[in-house]
Amino acid sequence: MSADHAGPGPDYAGRRSALRSLLVENEVDALLVTDLVNIRYLTGFTGSNAALLVTSWDIRNSEERTVIGTDGRYLSQVAEQVPDLRAEIARATARRIVELAGEWQLGRVGYESHIVTVDQHRGFIEQKTGLEFVATPGLVEQLRMVKDAYEIEQLRAACAAGDAGLATLLERGGLRPGRTERQVARDLEWAMFEHGADAVAFETIVATGANSAIPHHRPTGAVLATGDFVKIDFGAVVGGYHSDMTRTFVLGAASDWHREVYALVEAAQRAGREALKPGAPVTDVDAAARAVIEAAGHGKLFVHGLGHGVGLQIHEAPGIAKTGTGTLLSGVAVTVEPGVYFPGRGGVRIEDTLVVREGGPDLLTNTSKDLTVVE
Amino acid sequence: MSADHAGPGPDYAGRRSALRSLLVENEVDALLVTDLVNIRYLTGFTGSNAALLVTSWDIRNSEERTVIGTDGRYLSQVAEQVPDLRAEIARATARRIVELAGEWQLGRVGYESHIVTVDQHRGFIEQKTGLEFVATPGLVEQLRMVKDAYEIEQLRAACAAGDAGLATLLERGGLRPGRTERQVARDLEWAMFEHGADAVAFETIVATGANSAIPHHRPTGAVLATGDFVKIDFGAVVGGYHSDMTRTFVLGAASDWHREVYALVEAAQRAGREALKPGAPVTDVDAAARAVIEAAGHGKLFVHGLGHGVGLQIHEAPGIAKTGTGTLLSGVAVTVEPGVYFPGRGGVRIEDTLVVREGGPDLLTNTSKDLTVVE
Repeated sequence: MSADHAGPGPDYAGRRSALRSLLVENEVDALLVTDLVNIRYLTGFTGSNAALLVTSWDIRNSEERTVIGTDGRYLSQVAEQVPDLRAEIARATARRIVELAGEWQLGRVGYESHIVTVDQHRGFIEQKTGLEFVATPGLVEQLRMVKDAYEIEQLRAACAAGDAGLATLLERGGLRPGRTERQVARDLEWAMFEHGADAVAFETIVATGANSAIPHHRPTGAVLATGDFVKIDFGAVVGGYHSDMTRTFVLGAASDWHREVYALVEAAQRAGREALKPGAPVTDVDAAARAVIEAAGHGKLFVHGLGHGVGLQIHEAPGIAKTGTGTLLSGVAVTVEPGVYFPGRGGVRIEDTLVVREGGPDLLTNTSKDLTVVE
Repeated sequence: MSADHAGPGPDYAGRRSALRSLLVENEVDALLVTDLVNIRYLTGFTGSNAALLVTSWDIRNSEERTVIGTDGRYLSQVAEQVPDLRAEIARATARRIVELAGEWQLGRVGYESHIVTVDQHRGFIEQKTGLEFVATPGLVEQLRMVKDAYEIEQLRAACAAGDAGLATLLERGGLRPGRTERQVARDLEWAMFEHGADAVAFETIVATGANSAIPHHRPTGAVLATGDFVKIDFGAVVGGYHSDMTRTFVLGAASDWHREVYALVEAAQRAGREALKPGAPVTDVDAAARAVIEAAGHGKLFVHGLGHGVGLQIHEAPGIAKTGTGTLLSGVAVTVEPGVYFPGRGGVRIEDTLVVREGGPDLLTNTSKDLTVVE
């Protein structure tokens, strides 16, 4: 289900046009796209098997020579979802697309060397088409970083389903001592579906007590108890777009330690959000939040990067971390999610999904970040 | 959650031993395992980032020189899940493991060329460790094909959660004219969770009326109506293992056409199940079912392979199809799922999950395959 929206739908032809300009820059005649998410982004096709050839501006009739391949299971689906492109139906889908590129004598053909396996690449070469295969990693991902109005609408709807799901969980008393992590996770996921989620964005994390110190914890039969931190990291998918949010609660009554740790992470998260602006190196954004935690002497307890891009995938470019590269642009959707984890005792993470904008980021996850004590 | 079981737990050390024999056969000193499912199979580790080096019998102290790498997020998890192996914690995880293999001067190191991307492979080479990297695709997958008693117990529990979930859906009247595909899918998934599923095995397919003719259909807001075929393809995950079952119902009253198509697919499915035996070429199994449909003149409407292996992944080796290779062995878990699809009108698929055995397959999905008309 796509969110109801007043604006235009996804502009697949426009996205292919933008890609063609990158192909000219990269001096290739075409790009062989085999990543299914990238194919969805460029065409709207959602089947589980596909290959796409996008020809460059330098090739005459480039849109006519842009062709999607899939197999017989998706015959009607590809016709419906991609009415504007030529479709090739073949069991050996990528092979057939490479063959066609060879028949068209395209010359230099880029491929997704960050996605294509060594065996697949060997297969392309062994087809002896006369094509020259050129490693061109990450071109479509580069386009996908900056979201258009349609995509932001979907992200907003996904985040709203997450906000509403969490609110419903709390209203129903679903988060309370005596319940298991797994029960809370299932109730939250169910509530997101009630509020319009098509799917969950990833396996919901509910981590109570000492488990909250494990950054990526799978829900278990562990029972929530008074005095626990309960960390909940979750998201919804709407129209293919993912939301991502973490909130950490205290059960029963908050001790000074709870308040101190929470306030620290809250301050770090605010610093990270405030550092989001077009032109900012991603390393600066990470550093802005990390400095707050380091100043409190807990730098070693913040064991992961600050955030990541989010969109058709739950993790996409850019990575916001010490080791990240590049700068932010207006329209990039990212998470900001610092955490401080005391092994064996407990931890806090606070995470939002936001869109980078001049004048300050657009906050898509709107659940309160005030320390919430659940009785 | 693992299923309750009387037998032993997973024998990770035994699986690594079996792999070491394959390494000797393939004349490599070690295998660099980067596929996360393969790593889980060999160690029990379930984190989202890992690399594993398994040294061959030809290397002295091979178990001591078998090492798992992950990053700081999984420090406590790797210690808990893999207490029997040395763990290396590094952000550039695979890089660190390759470095270590270089320090140990291992010589010929196999890698998963069907999983490793062209860029990753280039990265290994550029580390200049002096190692010779040898493409050794599919070694762990070869081991994973034959399930041990522990794995079959998990598969049985997953299939039982699927059977029970579907029974509950029907008991509650959740499958009836007037409901949407999406509502039915959500209710079925919820019922599987109630019956012990840890997760759903894949996005549940509910396809009604003309949609039932689309082999892989995502549930929509389409409303179930009297006279429809409703095809439901779904599964549960228990202890990491996936179940897979399809049943097709008729709503209201079955016409002669409904009965005829159903009986044809039922007969083809039975022929496929009966062809499952140790030593049978997978192409013969596919042909046994396909011949039934071809004899009825509908061969072109059976647009996919007959089945696939199932285990830690929903699709794994062996593929049972016209184009498949190899023969079955005792202990291989597979689906048998012929279908006949009349575009624009409707289709039927019937699918079970079974384990190949001398004396006939062990049927894990136990829901009736009799034509069921839902009033």
